[in-house]
Amino acid sequence: MDTFTAISERRSIKQFDPDHRFSEAEIEQLMAAAILSPTAFNIQNWRFVVITDQAQKQKIRDIGWNQEQFSHCSLLVLICGDRDAYNQETERYWANAPAETGQMLVSMIRQYYDANPEARRDENLRSGGMAAQTLMLAAKALGYDSCPMSGFDFAAAAGIVNLPAENDIVMAVAVGRALEPARPRGGQLPLAEVVHRDRFPS
Amino acid sequence: MDTFTAISERRSIKQFDPDHRFSEAEIEQLMAAAILSPTAFNIQNWRFVVITDQAQKQKIRDIGWNQEQFSHCSLLVLICGDRDAYNQETERYWANAPAETGQMLVSMIRQYYDANPEARRDENLRSGGMAAQTLMLAAKALGYDSCPMSGFDFAAAAGIVNLPAENDIVMAVAVGRALEPARPRGGQLPLAEVVHRDRFPS
Repeated sequence: MDTFTAISERRSIKQFDPDHRFSEAEIEQLMAAAILSPTAFNIQNWRFVVITDQAQKQKIRDIGWNQEQFSHCSLLVLICGDRDAYNQETERYWANAPAETGQMLVSMIRQYYDANPEARRDENLRSGGMAAQTLMLAAKALGYDSCPMSGFDFAAAAGIVNLPAENDIVMAVAVGRALEPARPRGGQLPLAEVVHRDRFPS
Repeated sequence: MDTFTAISERRSIKQFDPDHRFSEAEIEQLMAAAILSPTAFNIQNWRFVVITDQAQKQKIRDIGWNQEQFSHCSLLVLICGDRDAYNQETERYWANAPAETGQMLVSMIRQYYDANPEARRDENLRSGGMAAQTLMLAAKALGYDSCPMSGFDFAAAAGIVNLPAENDIVMAVAVGRALEPARPRGGQLPLAEVVHRDRFPS
């Protein structure tokens, strides 16, 4: 599917076919696309929990305002981020770079995040957001639909998925087969209100 | 361009053609795509500063480790978020919904963000990340390249673009015509290391 078509036809779907299952090949194709999303310094700080087990999905639904998408989707992808990713064998993130460039980057990565603990969490949110959109567009391109979700108890979800220390939950993306087309967009702001040229108006 | 092709061929480019300029129609096409990205409750909290003025780009470069992309790109898009978006005529975000649904959503939006000030900033990072990836994929689909950038002094950039109170800078995206193809990916982690099934391993 054309990229612009996927961008415009990606909509947040509330009603998924609860009987639909993805093949393992489709799951791999979606997740392989998601991890081509950029991360700062290539630290690849996202972590994904692909939930297909129905009992696990239901547990998230139970701590997510009972939203049907959590359990009726085919894949519930919990998008997380590891605040410590920058420091885990950092060299491998630049293994293919010329040695000198690689060493310089590794040093920059360590210095920057060592000195900026709060930047590690921000990086998880940024990287996770970029990967979430990649996943949703890839799903659309395969003929499926999705729903980005943050309305659930993150602390409870951490327990349900055994979230490791130093990891943050960013959001979830429900992916599946839509039972009915999306409603019209809720109310789109005009471009001129959200896009400014060169600076914000004073 | 096919969506999966755009996802795999989007790479962070360091060297842009400094003489290339986008047409106004292209700029509008890119930004119109970016604002089709999802936001929580459709609050459309992203704000974009599209910098084409060369002096403005240079100012960001001056507070961004002198990285050439800041001034050699054709468009430098500063992606921001408005923490107060949720509370600005909230009804319009659901103007097209049935009246009862719209009223319920407006009430939920206000209650949630009123009670969770820190969630307003997180939402900016998530929404901004999703929009950044949309912009980069749209640019790729038009035959251009991009570079996501967060290595600059956000506080100084806020002054340069006249960032309003209650707004956060999320990141920047440089967009332009690449002077040379991207190098091989720096060192991609295997899928099995970043994707888990149902829960993290214990």
